[in-house]
Amino acid sequence: MVRKRTLRNYTLTMAKTSASLTAMKTSSSKRKVIRRGAARRAPASAGPADPQLIEDLVAANRILTDHGVLDGYGHVSARHDRDPNRYLLSRSLAPALVTANDIMEYDLDSNPLDLQDRTLYVERFIHGEIYKARPDVQAIVHHHSPAVIPFGVSTVPLRPLYHMAAFLWEGVPVFEIRDVAGMTDMLVRSPALGHALAQTLGSKAAALMRGHGAVVVSSSLPGVVGRSIYLQINAHLQAQAVALGGPVTYLDPEEGRRADPGGYQRAWELWKRKAMAK
Amino acid sequence: MVRKRTLRNYTLTMAKTSASLTAMKTSSSKRKVIRRGAARRAPASAGPADPQLIEDLVAANRILTDHGVLDGYGHVSARHDRDPNRYLLSRSLAPALVTANDIMEYDLDSNPLDLQDRTLYVERFIHGEIYKARPDVQAIVHHHSPAVIPFGVSTVPLRPLYHMAAFLWEGVPVFEIRDVAGMTDMLVRSPALGHALAQTLGSKAAALMRGHGAVVVSSSLPGVVGRSIYLQINAHLQAQAVALGGPVTYLDPEEGRRADPGGYQRAWELWKRKAMAK
Amino acid sequence: MVRKRTLRNYTLTMAKTSASLTAMKTSSSKRKVIRRGAARRAPASAGPADPQLIEDLVAANRILTDHGVLDGYGHVSARHDRDPNRYLLSRSLAPALVTANDIMEYDLDSNPLDLQDRTLYVERFIHGEIYKARPDVQAIVHHHSPAVIPFGVSTVPLRPLYHMAAFLWEGVPVFEIRDVAGMTDMLVRSPALGHALAQTLGSKAAALMRGHGAVVVSSSLPGVVGRSIYLQINAHLQAQAVALGGPVTYLDPEEGRRADPGGYQRAWELWKRKAMAK
Amino acid sequence: MVRKRTLRNYTLTMAKTSASLTAMKTSSSKRKVIRRGAARRAPASAGPADPQLIEDLVAANRILTDHGVLDGYGHVSARHDRDPNRYLLSRSLAPALVTANDIMEYDLDSNPLDLQDRTLYVERFIHGEIYKARPDVQAIVHHHSPAVIPFGVSTVPLRPLYHMAAFLWEGVPVFEIRDVAGMTDMLVRSPALGHALAQTLGSKAAALMRGHGAVVVSSSLPGVVGRSIYLQINAHLQAQAVALGGPVTYLDPEEGRRADPGGYQRAWELWKRKAMAK
Repeated sequence: MVRKRTLRNYTLTMAKTSASLTAMKTSSSKRKVIRRGAARRAPASAGPADPQLIEDLVAANRILTDHGVLDGYGHVSARHDRDPNRYLLSRSLAPALVTANDIMEYDLDSNPLDLQDRTLYVERFIHGEIYKARPDVQAIVHHHSPAVIPFGVSTVPLRPLYHMAAFLWEGVPVFEIRDVAGMTDMLVRSPALGHALAQTLGSKAAALMRGHGAVVVSSSLPGVVGRSIYLQINAHLQAQAVALGGPVTYLDPEEGRRADPGGYQRAWELWKRKAMAK
Repeated sequence: MVRKRTLRNYTLTMAKTSASLTAMKTSSSKRKVIRRGAARRAPASAGPADPQLIEDLVAANRILTDHGVLDGYGHVSARHDRDPNRYLLSRSLAPALVTANDIMEYDLDSNPLDLQDRTLYVERFIHGEIYKARPDVQAIVHHHSPAVIPFGVSTVPLRPLYHMAAFLWEGVPVFEIRDVAGMTDMLVRSPALGHALAQTLGSKAAALMRGHGAVVVSSSLPGVVGRSIYLQINAHLQAQAVALGGPVTYLDPEEGRRADPGGYQRAWELWKRKAMAK
Repeated sequence: MVRKRTLRNYTLTMAKTSASLTAMKTSSSKRKVIRRGAARRAPASAGPADPQLIEDLVAANRILTDHGVLDGYGHVSARHDRDPNRYLLSRSLAPALVTANDIMEYDLDSNPLDLQDRTLYVERFIHGEIYKARPDVQAIVHHHSPAVIPFGVSTVPLRPLYHMAAFLWEGVPVFEIRDVAGMTDMLVRSPALGHALAQTLGSKAAALMRGHGAVVVSSSLPGVVGRSIYLQINAHLQAQAVALGGPVTYLDPEEGRRADPGGYQRAWELWKRKAMAK
Repeated sequence: MVRKRTLRNYTLTMAKTSASLTAMKTSSSKRKVIRRGAARRAPASAGPADPQLIEDLVAANRILTDHGVLDGYGHVSARHDRDPNRYLLSRSLAPALVTANDIMEYDLDSNPLDLQDRTLYVERFIHGEIYKARPDVQAIVHHHSPAVIPFGVSTVPLRPLYHMAAFLWEGVPVFEIRDVAGMTDMLVRSPALGHALAQTLGSKAAALMRGHGAVVVSSSLPGVVGRSIYLQINAHLQAQAVALGGPVTYLDPEEGRRADPGGYQRAWELWKRKAMAK
């Protein structure tokens, strides 16, 4: 009996600390009410995604954790291979723990096709709204990589310094959530905020989010993983180059356009092999 | 016989080097004499703590070591789940080595309830005095994370730069032990020093200790672990942002208040799984 | 049938992302047509290389990955021990994955002696052209070590700061591909560009490549591995020394000439043992 | 026959690269001729050292490698427990590879008591000359920790910033080998240079060596290991504190004197357990 009371006490404390988790879930079910556009029937699933794509999505979660782009937070998605109006994203879980069974299907309003009792990433709207705005994008990462945060809060623009980050040649816009929504909890927790972020991103490969993180897009999962890793490295390099004190020669936009490494296939083979061996 | 002499010689050398360890023990038994307040009977134990809480406390020790917040030094405590006037803290041991058997019960004057032949952390008063002053606090970390030390010795205030460190929105005071006790060995080795530190902390989530380290508090173990980890990351980020040279946009206090990540549950699940798998 | 379509869809996406890989292969077969000098018979192989040399070359690939000099990209070669007009280099593969079976033989125009169906490093001309210009060189590394990139884009010259990097005493020239070829994709994808890089390198131990990486040479594989590792460390050290703010005392050229660590044999023994144990 | 020639060719190349290794050995046998003081009989061994001390010395080699204080280079010694005129140091070997069988006995002129066919650290005179000059010193580390090199080449003095590095309170002198010997290969390869370094060290806990590394001393092996590790961390901290831009509050010498952590016993227990588990 004493044992029971003990457990109850501690469970009570834990319950408080997971309040935000519960809040996410609630907010996710409310979402159906406040989503943009008219009421409609429950959307139909596009069917099972290519197992190879699912495997790559799981690998992407692990690879990005291995490289410190993701820690316990952040997420990576892929557009569904059978239906451009669907995307694939894990339930709310630390990326390192994601398995094939955790991957869920969403429509572009970021409604889950089959919620069950799962909690959702509160910022899934980042993915849905960018897939809407960018038909060329097949994969998206949202992360808090420590290397890029300083550029999001500084007036110094992030610029490509070497060929591995050449995909930044169009520039890296900064999303200032204050301009859109004033004082917030910094999270992209609505379609409207996701839409505003997608507007800031425009046709670029990546955007920084002030006081928060970044979003990176590509036409493939290997591509978005490679871009996320080299965005991070480029941020380190630029910080170091600036600290040396002299003028810095950045890639010329034309050099950047020509040098974009695209799918990072050679590295992807290595990264995936390592990630899946664990 | 020669062997014996050899061993004795080396043991002698080692004995000298562990002098400080012995000093701690002695000082701990003397403590009963010099503790604030009148003499009283040996305090009664609050009884065994929730095994789940003990397990989380062991996990917290390991997680904080995994993240470099703790190395061979520093400590993490939790308030007893059965009695708010008791707290739980390991015997003097490197955090990575702490197991459930090493956890001891203390009263808020930082007297052990059952000393046996164990040595105590000389700075346990940090914990007792903060638990006294802050009924809302359920868990405390004292650490020497290299990332935060520079802010404790600089005039540049540590400020939250992104949402993961939003809990710093009330500011991070610096405890200057010289103001309280003049020239010292920098350690919080008395209730009076612990009390002074608690005063500096006030209602905040964290305080820096000049030339020493930091103290972080939360309403849960997952919360204090997450806060310690993201305090460290935020310090890195701010140093890098400052080095870029331009003006820096910090979180607005209102943004910070709204964005406080609380219990860091998603990450805690990952951290604990990794820490306990070793 | 639905399964098949699914697989085809995803395979299609992947095919696009590996376009650059295919491009490399095509460009490599075209190379035979555009190579400098007159048409000639297929060159004869110099015969199998010393297995010990092959083993060291495999080890070099792994060691440089272990030290972060190479990641998924970059490459290391050795001159053939039987014929100074041949060199040994892996097929296009992430260095960490290279085994003895992946090592190919090239002539100094960087034509493979036995292509089979393998893809080639698009920048192999770096190796061939330097072996042509530098009879003293037995091993070459091309890498993108993040530590050295900032010096390639800055006006601050990289200089040896301590004895382990004394081999830099002659200075570290910077190859500016714009001066040679205007706007490019930054890659040394032709004999002419390889030749220009070799000219910039001159008699030095290393050259930086603006917005790209570096090339390091030595009279042995252990030497070029050691030089690559300590070039990287020296770059870190110099960045830190500059950031301290005072004047910096570099190695005097005479000190550098005397202190060149040469073959790094003591470390090589350790590095190789660790690399081959995996 | 072709095989033999192949092997000979490669062996020839390797022979060149290990020239410096051979040079060390030769120089070590010549040493007996040029050593200071009159000729004398072969010194008698002090007998086998305490196995516990040998084990700690092996552990120290590994711990310092684990912490990046040592890499393939640098060395750690202990004064013999049976004879203050003898010290213990590995044969020339990367520290991570040192086992009990590699530990050799030296007299204070740094002559090995039992050379056999082993090669010696060319800079062993650092140890012998400091043991001569400092009867209080029982253990010495010579290392090239990247963190401290910048302070050796800068005019910014290294100073203790927090209690874990309080042992630096007397200051950290810089040994400028040019002042003693003009242009050199930077190595302390003679008793005279070792003596000069000992003079610069004086009564301090550590000295930097310009363009080279550092030497750290203590009254015990755990002490010298802890000091080496926290010297490294303090150098990082100071660099970061300086970069923040404001004035920095260092430990007051009196604070430093009081706070010297001595034997670092709590951490040593952890470090040794980890190092010996490999």
